[in-house]
Order: sequence, then C-alpha cells, then structure tokens
Amino acid sequence: MTRDVVVCEVGPRDGLQMAKSVMPTAVKLRWIDAMVHAGVSDMEVGSFVPPQLIPQMADTEEVVRHTIRLPTLKTIVLVPNQKGAQRAFAAGAGHLVVPVSVSDTHSRSNTHKGTYEQVAEVGRLIEWVRAQDRPMKVEAACATAFGCSFEGNVPERRVSEVAEALLAAGADTVSLADTVGYAFPAQVRSLVQAMRSAVGAALEKLHLHDTMGLGLANATAGLEAGIRNFDASLAGLGGCPFAPGASGNIVTEDLVFLLESMGLKTGIDLDALIATRSLLAEGLPGEPMHGNVSKAGIPPTFRLAA
Amino acid sequence: MTRDVVVCEVGPRDGLQMAKSVMPTAVKLRWIDAMVHAGVSDMEVGSFVPPQLIPQMADTEEVVRHTIRLPTLKTIVLVPNQKGAQRAFAAGAGHLVVPVSVSDTHSRSNTHKGTYEQVAEVGRLIEWVRAQDRPMKVEAACATAFGCSFEGNVPERRVSEVAEALLAAGADTVSLADTVGYAFPAQVRSLVQAMRSAVGAALEKLHLHDTMGLGLANATAGLEAGIRNFDASLAGLGGCPFAPGASGNIVTEDLVFLLESMGLKTGIDLDALIATRSLLAEGLPGEPMHGNVSKAGIPPTFRLAA
Repeated sequence: MTRDVVVCEVGPRDGLQMAKSVMPTAVKLRWIDAMVHAGVSDMEVGSFVPPQLIPQMADTEEVVRHTIRLPTLKTIVLVPNQKGAQRAFAAGAGHLVVPVSVSDTHSRSNTHKGTYEQVAEVGRLIEWVRAQDRPMKVEAACATAFGCSFEGNVPERRVSEVAEALLAAGADTVSLADTVGYAFPAQVRSLVQAMRSAVGAALEKLHLHDTMGLGLANATAGLEAGIRNFDASLAGLGGCPFAPGASGNIVTEDLVFLLESMGLKTGIDLDALIATRSLLAEGLPGEPMHGNVSKAGIPPTFRLAA
Repeated sequence: MTRDVVVCEVGPRDGLQMAKSVMPTAVKLRWIDAMVHAGVSDMEVGSFVPPQLIPQMADTEEVVRHTIRLPTLKTIVLVPNQKGAQRAFAAGAGHLVVPVSVSDTHSRSNTHKGTYEQVAEVGRLIEWVRAQDRPMKVEAACATAFGCSFEGNVPERRVSEVAEALLAAGADTVSLADTVGYAFPAQVRSLVQAMRSAVGAALEKLHLHDTMGLGLANATAGLEAGIRNFDASLAGLGGCPFAPGASGNIVTEDLVFLLESMGLKTGIDLDALIATRSLLAEGLPGEPMHGNVSKAGIPPTFRLAA
C-alpha cells in the first residue's frame, strides 16, 4: 500500500529503555506483533548496548531475530558504536540508527567524546558495515539538534555542518532529534529548510518530543516543511531524561490521528493501534501512559485517509 | 505595552464551571489578581447564568465588581441570554461573550432552540445593549464550529452563514470555538481563511480545546492564518463535557511558551503565570491540572519576546 507519511514506532527501543521496569520478552514480541498487525511499517525494536547499562535491551538479539521475519516490517535497531553494529549484523538487522550529539558538551557528557570524534567513530562503523557481504542502511541521528540542556541554543549552521560530516562519513540518511524537547514550530520549519539547502533529501526524519506540549505542533511544522517520516512512541512512552515527570516522545496514536485527519495516509488502523496499549500496560504495569485520542475516543468526524 | 498576540484567560469561567467543586470567592479573586499581575490582559471572569444550574458562577457579580477596577484588565463575561446581559450591565461589565451553536442539533440540545432562533435572541440582546447609556462590546462565539458530537462534520459554509447572521444581528466580533475538540490543523487554516473571505477582520478569536492533543498544533495553524487572539485556560482547567477524562481548553502557560518561543509578545511573564497554579490548586484541591511547561521546567533556550 502507498503511505503518504511514515510513522516509525520507537517505543520498543526509546520507550522501554527509559521505563522503570523491564518488559518480559514474550509480552514485548506480542506487543510488537500487534502494532505491526495494526499497520506499523517501521519500528526501532531495540538497541545493541551493553546489557548491564540498559537491562531493558538485553533481549534485542532475540527481538530482532523475531521481527526480521515479519514481511511488512522494517526492523531498525539503535547502535552506539561498531561493536553494536556487529551484533546488529549478526542478528540479521538491515537498518541501523547511530546517534551523534550535535552539542559537543552533550556528546562528551554521554560518550566521553566530542561531536567530531563521534563522527569519526561513525565513519569507521560505516566502513565496517560496507565491508560486509549483506547491506545495512545507516541513519545518523543528529541528537540535540534543537537545543541542549547544557549549551542551550544549538546554531543551525552547526547542525548542518555535523549532518554534512555524517553524510561524508557514509551515512545513508540523517535525522534531526529534539532530544531534550526544546523545539518550537518556527524553529522546526527554519531548521528543516536550512538542512534541505545543505543536504537535500538526505534529511529524512524528525524525532520529536512532547516535553513542552509542542510535539504535534512541531510535527505539523515539519510536515509543512516537507518531512514525511516521524518517530513516535505508543502512549508517549519514554519520558525526558532531563525533565523528570515530563512527557517524552510524541504519542504515536495522536500523531496518526493528526496525520489521517489532514488526509494523509499512514497505513495504520487507529483503532487497532490504540488497542495495543493494553499489551503495553500488561508488560509494564504502573508505567505512565500518555495520549489524548485514546482517552477522549475517536470522534465521529474521523476517517482514515482513503 | 504592545502585544503581538492576545491570550484571553478563560479559566475563571470555562474552567471553573466544569470543576467538580466550587472555588471560594476569596481565592478566586486572589487567583485572578495574580494572573493579571503576571500580565494577563483579557479574561473571562465568569458567566451570568442561573446559579442553581452552575453554582461555580454564583459569585460572578462580586467578581466583576472587583475586576473592573483592575486598570490593565479587559473584563469579559459570558451571558447565555438577555437576562444575563442585563445582570452583566448592572455589574459594570464592558465585554460580553454570547455563545451560539452552529450545529442545530447541538443548539437544540443545549438551549431547546435552533441555531437561527438563537441568532434572533442574540439580535434582541444586542438591541437591548445598544439602548443602554453605557456601551458594551458583544462577541458572538460560534460553538461547534469545527464539528459536533451529534452531527459530526459542520460544513464551512454553515459556519460562515451563521457568523454573517450574528454580525448582521449587531455583534461586534465573532469567534470560532472547537467546543468538542475535533479540530485539526488543516481544518483550522481552511475555516479561518473561509471566514476571512466571508466576514473579514470581524473574526477575531479562536477558542481551542486539547481533546485530541492537537490544541497547540491548531493554535499554530490559526496563527499562520492570521489569528492574533486565543482563549486558553490555566492548567487546561475545563475538561470536555463530551469526553469524560479528556483534557479541555488549551493550557495558557503552554500557549504562552509557544507564542513567546516564536518571537511573539504576549505581555505575560511565564514564570509569574506558572506560579499562579498554586492558587488554583489551593482553591480547587484535587482538580486535575494539565500543562507541560510547568512540569518540565522552562528550558534555558527560552526568552520572553523582546
């Protein structure tokens, strides 16, 4: 089927890694299957990080071995480094996301390496990927592209320079992440336009948070600036590490409601997607679940885009 | 001072009338004063409705007598009929909002009168207002302008016809209200443009809800279509009568954050505004309080528009 906009579900990776408890693998697989059945075509299913750091991701290999057999799903995994890429390759993943923080201070705080040292790491990672006998796509995610909790403002020019360096290092696409949730609509429009001038269609996706309540306003601005690919998390699972108690990723079901209301096909059945919240609740009892459409009910004016 | 956008606080009217308990008058006056001190220039402070129907509004006369003495505040009251207008006039109010539901079914369900019978009522109300020795402004609020829980879709043409009739009946301005929270950004832009063609600058204000999580996305769309006046409610107080548990009015402090982030002056000090949430909590203990900026904290990138 043709989709006007790709909604990439990141709950099983970005959502679960922030959760207080660990979702049992069996529930995780049922939850992922249900979302794929509802029409989700792209999903970050996990990350290859040291399990002692993020126990929620310890089963990523098993998850990937399961999801790559789902014919309608693009299985995406996050890897922080070359070791992660090797594990992803061994498990059979075809799409990697590698984050690099545009803010040097944020990069050093998270990885003990500056931004351009990380870009060089990504270059070596991609070199390794390209030397394998099976192709893998590599998306470089520009973290803190809309502001940094340490540095505050992140200049547009800095973002496009880092993005250009990542593409020069071999990344297939770049995405922009509002890691700490500071983005506002005029900024989204402006940065997307600046990036289009700098790297053209290689800017594929936005990863937005709802920290300030502007998540869907920012998605609308991105949409108008030409973006057709958005990360989102069922029930907004994920929180913001820099603002305890605040909401995190934009809510997948609210984003689908927005897009389909605008007449844009997502390929996702909203009722079926909302129904998968019960599996999330089963696998993570007590975890806060966000979302408006699921609470208010789908209004009678709503139609899935034909 | 010059404001680029007027944020009209409707919490003391639309918010409190939906609350489970009754805010004591003394707290209400302190809360209103604190919001005015934070820079709020326009406020619906109450409504003149039968107190046996809405006990939360029984003290509106006392509230109005207090707020009309605040030199920086435009005191606005909602009145459903001519009797309400007479009470508002006697109390000294200078600005009335009179709601008329664009959906005939919704109008009959709420008032036992069809839309155009209500328009005729408004005409008689305005005739009475114009005959007094002190001027009062009359805003006609087009309720269910973006959809109706009974009728579903409300055609744009119907909205502009009702608005034209209300202006012909003597209203100074009209506003569009997303009473049940069905609006989405493309619809907001389209309806505002259609209304501009039909009634020009007489369309002054949008009253948006956040039922589906699209409240600020819709405000952004309205802003881009030229609207410079928005209703909002502190802490999103208000709920949606058609969706129990759902959020109601857009959150004033999140809207101020959005607007000031876009470089638009609201005249409101965001820190001071957020601080007034404690008075709301004091006056309505246990009432759910919404809002993202207040929970996440104002980010370091934020500056009030200069």
